[in-house]
Amino acid sequence: MDAVKAKLAGQRIETPSWAYGNSGTRFKVFTQPGVPRSPEEKIDDAAQVHAFTGAAPSVALHIPWDKVDDYGALARYARDAGVVVGTINSNVFQDDDYKLGSVTNPDPAVRRKAVDHLLECVDVMDATGSRDLKLWFSDGTNYPGQDDIRDRQDRLAEALATVYNRLTGDQRMLLEYKLFEPAFYTTDVPDWGTSYAHCLKLGERATVCVDTGHHAPGTNIEFIVAFLLREGKLGAFDFNSRFYADDDLMVGAADPFQLFRILYEVVRGDGLELVSFMLDQCHNIELKIPGQIRSICNVQEATAKALLVDRAALKSAQDSGDVLAANDVFMDAYNTDVRPLLAELRTERGLDPDPVAAYRRSGYQQKIAAERVGGEQAGWGA
Amino acid sequence: MDAVKAKLAGQRIETPSWAYGNSGTRFKVFTQPGVPRSPEEKIDDAAQVHAFTGAAPSVALHIPWDKVDDYGALARYARDAGVVVGTINSNVFQDDDYKLGSVTNPDPAVRRKAVDHLLECVDVMDATGSRDLKLWFSDGTNYPGQDDIRDRQDRLAEALATVYNRLTGDQRMLLEYKLFEPAFYTTDVPDWGTSYAHCLKLGERATVCVDTGHHAPGTNIEFIVAFLLREGKLGAFDFNSRFYADDDLMVGAADPFQLFRILYEVVRGDGLELVSFMLDQCHNIELKIPGQIRSICNVQEATAKALLVDRAALKSAQDSGDVLAANDVFMDAYNTDVRPLLAELRTERGLDPDPVAAYRRSGYQQKIAAERVGGEQAGWGA
Amino acid sequence: MDAVKAKLAGQRIETPSWAYGNSGTRFKVFTQPGVPRSPEEKIDDAAQVHAFTGAAPSVALHIPWDKVDDYGALARYARDAGVVVGTINSNVFQDDDYKLGSVTNPDPAVRRKAVDHLLECVDVMDATGSRDLKLWFSDGTNYPGQDDIRDRQDRLAEALATVYNRLTGDQRMLLEYKLFEPAFYTTDVPDWGTSYAHCLKLGERATVCVDTGHHAPGTNIEFIVAFLLREGKLGAFDFNSRFYADDDLMVGAADPFQLFRILYEVVRGDGLELVSFMLDQCHNIELKIPGQIRSICNVQEATAKALLVDRAALKSAQDSGDVLAANDVFMDAYNTDVRPLLAELRTERGLDPDPVAAYRRSGYQQKIAAERVGGEQAGWGA
Amino acid sequence: MDAVKAKLAGQRIETPSWAYGNSGTRFKVFTQPGVPRSPEEKIDDAAQVHAFTGAAPSVALHIPWDKVDDYGALARYARDAGVVVGTINSNVFQDDDYKLGSVTNPDPAVRRKAVDHLLECVDVMDATGSRDLKLWFSDGTNYPGQDDIRDRQDRLAEALATVYNRLTGDQRMLLEYKLFEPAFYTTDVPDWGTSYAHCLKLGERATVCVDTGHHAPGTNIEFIVAFLLREGKLGAFDFNSRFYADDDLMVGAADPFQLFRILYEVVRGDGLELVSFMLDQCHNIELKIPGQIRSICNVQEATAKALLVDRAALKSAQDSGDVLAANDVFMDAYNTDVRPLLAELRTERGLDPDPVAAYRRSGYQQKIAAERVGGEQAGWGA
Repeated sequence: MDAVKAKLAGQRIETPSWAYGNSGTRFKVFTQPGVPRSPEEKIDDAAQVHAFTGAAPSVALHIPWDKVDDYGALARYARDAGVVVGTINSNVFQDDDYKLGSVTNPDPAVRRKAVDHLLECVDVMDATGSRDLKLWFSDGTNYPGQDDIRDRQDRLAEALATVYNRLTGDQRMLLEYKLFEPAFYTTDVPDWGTSYAHCLKLGERATVCVDTGHHAPGTNIEFIVAFLLREGKLGAFDFNSRFYADDDLMVGAADPFQLFRILYEVVRGDGLELVSFMLDQCHNIELKIPGQIRSICNVQEATAKALLVDRAALKSAQDSGDVLAANDVFMDAYNTDVRPLLAELRTERGLDPDPVAAYRRSGYQQKIAAERVGGEQAGWGA
Repeated sequence: MDAVKAKLAGQRIETPSWAYGNSGTRFKVFTQPGVPRSPEEKIDDAAQVHAFTGAAPSVALHIPWDKVDDYGALARYARDAGVVVGTINSNVFQDDDYKLGSVTNPDPAVRRKAVDHLLECVDVMDATGSRDLKLWFSDGTNYPGQDDIRDRQDRLAEALATVYNRLTGDQRMLLEYKLFEPAFYTTDVPDWGTSYAHCLKLGERATVCVDTGHHAPGTNIEFIVAFLLREGKLGAFDFNSRFYADDDLMVGAADPFQLFRILYEVVRGDGLELVSFMLDQCHNIELKIPGQIRSICNVQEATAKALLVDRAALKSAQDSGDVLAANDVFMDAYNTDVRPLLAELRTERGLDPDPVAAYRRSGYQQKIAAERVGGEQAGWGA
Repeated sequence: MDAVKAKLAGQRIETPSWAYGNSGTRFKVFTQPGVPRSPEEKIDDAAQVHAFTGAAPSVALHIPWDKVDDYGALARYARDAGVVVGTINSNVFQDDDYKLGSVTNPDPAVRRKAVDHLLECVDVMDATGSRDLKLWFSDGTNYPGQDDIRDRQDRLAEALATVYNRLTGDQRMLLEYKLFEPAFYTTDVPDWGTSYAHCLKLGERATVCVDTGHHAPGTNIEFIVAFLLREGKLGAFDFNSRFYADDDLMVGAADPFQLFRILYEVVRGDGLELVSFMLDQCHNIELKIPGQIRSICNVQEATAKALLVDRAALKSAQDSGDVLAANDVFMDAYNTDVRPLLAELRTERGLDPDPVAAYRRSGYQQKIAAERVGGEQAGWGA
Repeated sequence: MDAVKAKLAGQRIETPSWAYGNSGTRFKVFTQPGVPRSPEEKIDDAAQVHAFTGAAPSVALHIPWDKVDDYGALARYARDAGVVVGTINSNVFQDDDYKLGSVTNPDPAVRRKAVDHLLECVDVMDATGSRDLKLWFSDGTNYPGQDDIRDRQDRLAEALATVYNRLTGDQRMLLEYKLFEPAFYTTDVPDWGTSYAHCLKLGERATVCVDTGHHAPGTNIEFIVAFLLREGKLGAFDFNSRFYADDDLMVGAADPFQLFRILYEVVRGDGLELVSFMLDQCHNIELKIPGQIRSICNVQEATAKALLVDRAALKSAQDSGDVLAANDVFMDAYNTDVRPLLAELRTERGLDPDPVAAYRRSGYQQKIAAERVGGEQAGWGA
């Protein structure tokens, strides 16, 4: 149990700056009181999440949503607030030029502009000390015939190679995939196989990022996790949950058993320290800071259950072909209520055993609602 | 063949005012030159679509996107432009009050506000002479436990009854359903069964609206069409197409064979004159007016093929249990190139045989791009 | 807690005779030692499940798989074994005549044969004292054009009415629906709406049976449950679980959180005593008797959690629009480990606290494996 | 047009021996009169398909369904009948030993047995002169925890390497993938990425086989085709069609537009001569020989349309970013009725312009129905 606790104590989950800003659907973005108006205020909120959970010591940035003049100063601001700058996320989907794609656009001028932005993100990494560059491309087409599927792969490969070659030191590239949205016919990196194949050609610094909401219905995500870990190509998770498409609900909210199965494969594949855990969610209707805290608790609970699986008993049942017994061992861990264990761990670490309740009592929410009046609230596109 | 032509000549497909404004995804709305800045300019564009196709004599309005002081004047404007005001679409999803729902909101004050808006839409119908009120509710929940599923049905039933009772003359209510989005856990009218059950209780004026993009993967839409026509409860279509979720691509663009099968059931169920055909699409990256024209052509082509099915030969093969022969008869109609037939029909009616090409040659697109500078472009939420 | 225990103690879950026979996929049926060779041996196995769980006092029959000369004698055999005959399931899909359908077949002679079989099932109900007739039709088509969708609805309605009118006393009809399989283009009762519409016309004795594996991907089953309970039209569940299609895995094995949400709506809608709970699963690779016992435990655990939801706290959070708090109340019940509670309840009722382990220790499995040698093993089609 | 005709004339589509035997679902296998009782009779039927289409010169075998003492004699029999032996398909899913897997079974003795069978298939290739070994594994698990996902990959890799190293001359290995069924939780080769990764490690002789029915809902198959062709790793197609899962309907019957898009990517990627085209379908309710003929016609029609795409006009529209124009060029080819072109081509080649009608007139169906009485009909498992 001490070993379980030690692993849980060491788990770090990154929160993204954009989770603290307004988000929504194409139908409506509902605004919330107290939403940050600047990168610094987003960092302040991320620091709160870390203060209450002890598990979120870094915050991911999104360029240009978090564009500032002095990234070194922003990194220092974060450190002073108690967190560090984590992954740098590029954005090549919100400029009018990118209507028909960014790095795969048929127009070479647009492709150049997109690649320049990606290189600029590496500059930000240099300035902030961030290790990881996360690439998500909305590139794709809406109509059959609209563009050439294969030519777009050639353009993608060229852009990725250019950016990859710019990385130095321990910098890494994380290549995300997504089935669809915003492109509705083809997406240029639609599945793990595509991302894996490109990463393989790029080299060791390039690994796959698995966003748990980016798959076709019925996809077995934990299989992908196990497979990529076996290949040494699982770099990171973007955690969230979904009932339908890329719903971006709080991780563990839609299918907590699936989250447990995913975390079990991470544990099984010795990935707990190797793989980056990140949240990538949209708190469209719920409060954002406690939404992030709840999400971190959900990941911790799933991890605790995964660590509690009796691996020896499981292997014995598996090897003997006893289907029911093996499933029973697995489910026994899942059915365990690990909240007392996590409460105990938090108390030992000087944290409140119930981070959501503690945050609610802290008065921070009321404070930012009162103070952050005027200015433009941050959000997607802001 | 003359009977086929007569039926094709009589087919009317409504275009929606919002199709002419900007649209997009949650990631980005790309603007286009020449987009309308007022309800009147949207009507002008709709009139163009009718001018080139001869098949789109009415335009649907969306309140409050098309809010004006004098709806009688707007209706006259439309008539002068060569079209009439069609279906009135309510909007109870873009006000901050509707974050947790409109007519099913737990807060009775919000429910009242929503119902008042729906009643206001009936006023607009009175003023414009529109026959149909189309109701789509984004109401639902994102998280298990967020609200009581059954209470929300009670609230929905109450609101629908209030609005239904306000209808007079030949006014009708069309109740749309949708699997998900923007709600990501439950939707209060998620499927045709729910819409049907409510319409049944409301009475004869209430019928179901089938949006071709609002179903779960694998749903057989033509079955629903056949079933509702048999029950006398199919009121209208919102046409569009999709590869994944509610992609809102041009109708017929993703699965033209499905569109044919749907139209075949309409023809089979004697629905060609009874059911309202409407387009409800988002031309996010393609030009809007020719996108509407192409869509109308697609519906016409599918209808022509449906009318060409040799019903006697089909019945004979079906009755004898000859699976391959029955399928062959059906596919023979689908595989026929009906574009020459439609070109001939258009020529006979004094139209250009190729409406898209004719529009492109007309100079209208260049004209609006030049003229409609300044002001705020219309769009979702504008 | 006493009230929760009382409700749990009262819950009855029917097991089906065919669960004890061999099953498989189209690729292979793997045989198991000890599988029953007669309806009586199936009843013996069902009695074991009841002996260890105290929650499975009835066994469903499938005609003609359980065809015997004297159904009265079979009912007495069951009573002597400690169980009673439950639902009668008709089978109109395994005769060569039904290749193109049973009650919806284009050939009236085949339709007559199918209806005659259904009426024979009511005779079996009369003879056994069974209350419920469960109808599942595999009827549908594989190819567009193969048969007329609407004609098939007419034939279906006529057959259902004939059988419905044959019911007497407290006999009921349960109409199951299924998205697809074995029909691959249309299914004649594909969704709850179709079943509901037919039941509504038939009358009060006809209600919908929800098989948890029979929906399109993404369907919110608990919404259907809540809706049908509100309408007084939810008659029964066929429980099983699935990751993909109609996988027929053990209930609760694929998505235990979904099972909890379904049971919550049952509790919320006062359906715990009204609705019939039945298992309908295929233990293709795991042992059948302990598979049934495990499944019953899974339903009990989900029910216990559903009963533990703090309804007052939930309503308060819902009414105040606190999304996170409401979800927290809901998840608190789900995250509770209810196995100690159920163990306590079983001990109080004189049962072993761990039914699966007790069964494994009992020696019954070894006994039947040794005794049931020779003869033809029961199975689908046997 | 001559170039188009030449390419169409050169297209060869392999039919599988098992298509001529009985098939069905887990619910029922419906028998048909005239079904073959031996490998030789299957070859006779395959020869008929070739005689009427001129496009099916080879027949795939399935071992052990087509097990004979002398494979050299069987190959001669085929040549005498006018066809040759094509791909050898292994079967490691229908022996009781394979209940928990074949090459990935936890039991090393079972794995050895499975590998031995695969090696025996290579012997059959040596004896028949067949070039391709197609591997489909039903291996997977039904329940979480049942077996170790990653260990199974290790076992798979080892088995594949053993068989790969046994290949000689121009022999190739085709590795098929499938999302699910008969395994319902994990499948060991569930997607193209898994197959691709294994093939990459094996070497140049190993390529991916794309079965068009083996994907998750919403998967863009033509993207996979384009990607694999770009990588030089697309070896073969198993053609069929589906509305839901692996329905195995006639290719082109469910979504002819998708088939066109797939064939377009084949043409675009210069794969028309490189890639093997095979049918893999179940004619559960329709006649088998005309079902195969119809399927071949469907592939030919889709190929003809793909060849008719005006590539220069398409590229011009794509490069200029004209979404509608590019889609129009693409759809223009699809909307063309190519049946006259194919009829002309057949007449030029001395074939009947309508192969299905010609077969129906030929009397062969009546002949085999009369002659093939007695003996055991071939089918899955026979």
